[in-house]
Amino acid sequence: MSTEEPKRRPGGRSSRVQAAVFQAVRQLTAERGYGAFTVGEVAERAGVADTTIYRRWGTLEALLMEAVVNQLTVDSPLPSTGSLETDLRTYAAKVAADIHGPDGLAVLRTVTAALSAGPDGETARDQYLAVRADQIDQMLAPARDRGEKTPTTLDVLDVLLAPMYIRVLFGAGPLTPDYVNSLVDRLLSL
Amino acid sequence: MSTEEPKRRPGGRSSRVQAAVFQAVRQLTAERGYGAFTVGEVAERAGVADTTIYRRWGTLEALLMEAVVNQLTVDSPLPSTGSLETDLRTYAAKVAADIHGPDGLAVLRTVTAALSAGPDGETARDQYLAVRADQIDQMLAPARDRGEKTPTTLDVLDVLLAPMYIRVLFGAGPLTPDYVNSLVDRLLSL
Repeated sequence: MSTEEPKRRPGGRSSRVQAAVFQAVRQLTAERGYGAFTVGEVAERAGVADTTIYRRWGTLEALLMEAVVNQLTVDSPLPSTGSLETDLRTYAAKVAADIHGPDGLAVLRTVTAALSAGPDGETARDQYLAVRADQIDQMLAPARDRGEKTPTTLDVLDVLLAPMYIRVLFGAGPLTPDYVNSLVDRLLSL
Repeated sequence: MSTEEPKRRPGGRSSRVQAAVFQAVRQLTAERGYGAFTVGEVAERAGVADTTIYRRWGTLEALLMEAVVNQLTVDSPLPSTGSLETDLRTYAAKVAADIHGPDGLAVLRTVTAALSAGPDGETARDQYLAVRADQIDQMLAPARDRGEKTPTTLDVLDVLLAPMYIRVLFGAGPLTPDYVNSLVDRLLSL
């Protein structure tokens, strides 16, 4: 995040620039794979100056991860129906659909590649994970507040997300609805 | 695997070349990260000709993955004590120790990076997974043959390995003995 424009208004020029840059990143990632392009190519595709990107994001790595975090938080709001089981099944099906598509695989690759990208990458990865953990906790909080038996965020990571992520990363079979629901069953029976 | 030297003798020149090349790959991976070196650099470090590597492995990608598979199968034989629970706890502790170290993280990165490396990478990844799945099945087979309730290889992947892999890949906390044993408990209670 730039600290130079603390009063950015949503919907203003700054917001339009961000949307154009993130869209360019998503397109280039889908076309060429994670990070297989330059800041200059992102700038050209987005119709902005290179310096605009460098001033605002600093590095390609930081830009890539912020684009992913933005995509997740904007495109993947978590369900809140009043029933933990319904929320978890909806959420699990959504995650499965997301990570099976090219966008979702790009997200997983972004996060795992961030590990190899030094301190910038690790910071960006931790930012992604903090956003995701917050979202999951918000989904669990109502049931916890009602006094229901509720898994923790780490349970959700271990029992629900980790198997789906690893199966996609390892190419180890499709995420069928039956399989995804069996993971939710396992999570609810902890 | 080369098909040109079907009668390679273990302990012969070919075997010494392989050991030197694999060691060079492991060193370079540890020093610079996954794939951040050339076939020429591997050859120089191993004291062999570039052409020797190209003839035998074809691509850097294929070499990287075969080195990983070799490391896993040679360095990580699976336990076989006659007790499934003992075997699983020993195995889980070994995996945790392996993937916490720099070598293990290199393995995880190799496998996940293979996804981005096109058909060669996918073939190599599938080779790694087939070897690992075979080893796990060999560990489970005696208990299954004795008629004990036995998890499947995919259960081991989902419940035991996936959470450990994802926690390491995501930097989401240490793999303490208590944590690792709780995953084994969960696997045994399926």
